[in-house]
Amino acid sequence: MDYQKESLKKHQIWGGKIETKVRVPLKNKEDLSLAYTPGVASSSLAIKENPELSFSLTRRGNTVAVITDGTAILGLGDIGPEAGMPVMEGKCALFKKFGDVDAIPLCLKTKDTEEIIHIIKMLSGSFGGINLEDISSPRCFEIEKRLAEELDIPVFHDDQHGTAIVVGAALLNALKILKKNIEDIGVVINGPGAAGTAITKFLLDLGVKDILVCGINGILSPDENLAPSQKELALLTNKKLIKGNLEKALVGKDVFIGVSVGGCLKKEMIKGMKERPVIFALANPTPEIDPFEAKQAGAFIIGTGSSLYPNQINNALVFPGLFKGALQAQAKKINKEMKLAAAYALSSYIKEKDLTPEYLLPSPLDKKVYKAVAKAVFAAAIRTHVTRG
Amino acid sequence: MDYQKESLKKHQIWGGKIETKVRVPLKNKEDLSLAYTPGVASSSLAIKENPELSFSLTRRGNTVAVITDGTAILGLGDIGPEAGMPVMEGKCALFKKFGDVDAIPLCLKTKDTEEIIHIIKMLSGSFGGINLEDISSPRCFEIEKRLAEELDIPVFHDDQHGTAIVVGAALLNALKILKKNIEDIGVVINGPGAAGTAITKFLLDLGVKDILVCGINGILSPDENLAPSQKELALLTNKKLIKGNLEKALVGKDVFIGVSVGGCLKKEMIKGMKERPVIFALANPTPEIDPFEAKQAGAFIIGTGSSLYPNQINNALVFPGLFKGALQAQAKKINKEMKLAAAYALSSYIKEKDLTPEYLLPSPLDKKVYKAVAKAVFAAAIRTHVTRG
Repeated sequence: MDYQKESLKKHQIWGGKIETKVRVPLKNKEDLSLAYTPGVASSSLAIKENPELSFSLTRRGNTVAVITDGTAILGLGDIGPEAGMPVMEGKCALFKKFGDVDAIPLCLKTKDTEEIIHIIKMLSGSFGGINLEDISSPRCFEIEKRLAEELDIPVFHDDQHGTAIVVGAALLNALKILKKNIEDIGVVINGPGAAGTAITKFLLDLGVKDILVCGINGILSPDENLAPSQKELALLTNKKLIKGNLEKALVGKDVFIGVSVGGCLKKEMIKGMKERPVIFALANPTPEIDPFEAKQAGAFIIGTGSSLYPNQINNALVFPGLFKGALQAQAKKINKEMKLAAAYALSSYIKEKDLTPEYLLPSPLDKKVYKAVAKAVFAAAIRTHVTRG
Repeated sequence: MDYQKESLKKHQIWGGKIETKVRVPLKNKEDLSLAYTPGVASSSLAIKENPELSFSLTRRGNTVAVITDGTAILGLGDIGPEAGMPVMEGKCALFKKFGDVDAIPLCLKTKDTEEIIHIIKMLSGSFGGINLEDISSPRCFEIEKRLAEELDIPVFHDDQHGTAIVVGAALLNALKILKKNIEDIGVVINGPGAAGTAITKFLLDLGVKDILVCGINGILSPDENLAPSQKELALLTNKKLIKGNLEKALVGKDVFIGVSVGGCLKKEMIKGMKERPVIFALANPTPEIDPFEAKQAGAFIIGTGSSLYPNQINNALVFPGLFKGALQAQAKKINKEMKLAAAYALSSYIKEKDLTPEYLLPSPLDKKVYKAVAKAVFAAAIRTHVTRG
């Protein structure tokens, strides 16, 4: 099927993928007086006295804003806020369908970091959480960091952390198959953008000791002239100041994780890796290497960002359940422990005996996955005392 | 029933009055590939080429933002954005239930006029229309005026124009009962705030020639030291520089319209009016005069803002259908002709032979009302060429 053509046709027929649903009866005068004026005044006054009640007396406690500025929509780049809407609507549909989280798509007509931060702060009283989406790097780092510091609701840039969590879960399961300890493996991450940065930090949190990050000029090293976010990555991963290109970086490593550009991983590079290497080639729409070629070159476990191959590393496995758990706990933030809990819950959702090189992760259509993730995230929020009140 | 107490209980049980509803199938891999990645890219690219397609390829064309800054919530004053949410959610529920318009409640954490204008402009690409709500006067005038000028989607401050349209419709029907021409009547409007200002201008558009507007210091006169918006009203209505208090203003008039404070209209004042006067006492929650007292003083037709008495002047009769018609026409604004069309459609919804002094307007629960209003507004938008493309 030509998904592009067919999808456009469907979008023309659908006229929007989400809508507003009324949750209360509005059949008679009494209904109107309770849901709207004059009765509604009592809820407004209760919230005025105690703003925390806005989480329970309105839908706020189950509602996230899915916010983009249209600068990094899918692999399409900066296509503007209106053009970002089909993707944001799709994301909101997944939030509701798989996490029972109500989600509102908002596309901002500005690319100014300070302005985006300010607008989201001004809107934050209407939402229980903020899901940042498809905001280009490096602005996304500052925007998320500042909002997480300044707001008392969860703020989560899914392109960073959603991706990192699902990569982490897939890696945990690959290591179970390979019977390797996470402390002993060597990992190369190709692509030091938003996703690559978050994956690097998250794998360190998961216990990986040996990581090299590659950019277009090869291995990131702290003694080079790098952008601030890349400098930080270099300091976290390459204290030995190792130099070289991607091919050199991969020599003797166990795992390649690509969040870069299609076709940049060559067969020869895989051949220099350890035996039975793990290749996560996540570039969209074209992976860093065709999975068939990777197999030929000796790759033992292969994952991509696409549903066309086995092992789709799909962050739709994470964000609905993660936010549901955070919202249920009335968490003020999504901390490291909650992200780790999501990764462990997702990986252990498949029993070890059922894992195969072609079956690392459950299907995003399995609604029980989200419940398992939500439960683990909820427990981690309670345990680490980041909940309200 | 104690509506305040009962409504609070209901809100605790409901946990929000609206939610997100998914409009597309998400049952299998193919569904995901069409509604989300990779297929969704084709709709994003189509909108990038032609941003107008955002109205049909996403829900934008049927979605309004209901936006407040929490400064004039019901009769409760400035209670803050979070406390405004129960009212905004209620409004959104009515939008959907009665107009099939999808509505998103947004409560802004700022009272700065320029900032509110800017934020709404930055959000406008996500919506087909903007319904401003419960923003205090005089800031609401500037905010609406500037947004209407600078955006190419309908912007409508319901507290102003929704109220004006339903008052206009009720007055048209009162005059049918009284067999008076609109050009011949004398009207006093008490309360030169947001609603009073809009009512004054709208009645002039409907053909009323003789209007006096009263504030707390009596009749507004152009030679006095007045706030800009009141000065404008004085110039529109009182070129003769008539002076005096409300009682004097009412002498010999046909119609009193109060959008002021409970209890300010006295029996004696009504006695000075023409025979069979019309009294619309719209202050909430307590009307300017108790309808029973007004009757005793000779009032012939009485309307209030409350559902407890006959003739509730309820702008819920207007906004769902008005926006539906504007959205269906893909109107870029809501102009005078569309507002007049809404008032005429609402008034003529009740056949002249069925009108009585206690039955001026249909029930807001009658869903056919909204269709009649939408149809008339749609036609007016087409006729006056304010539609897109």
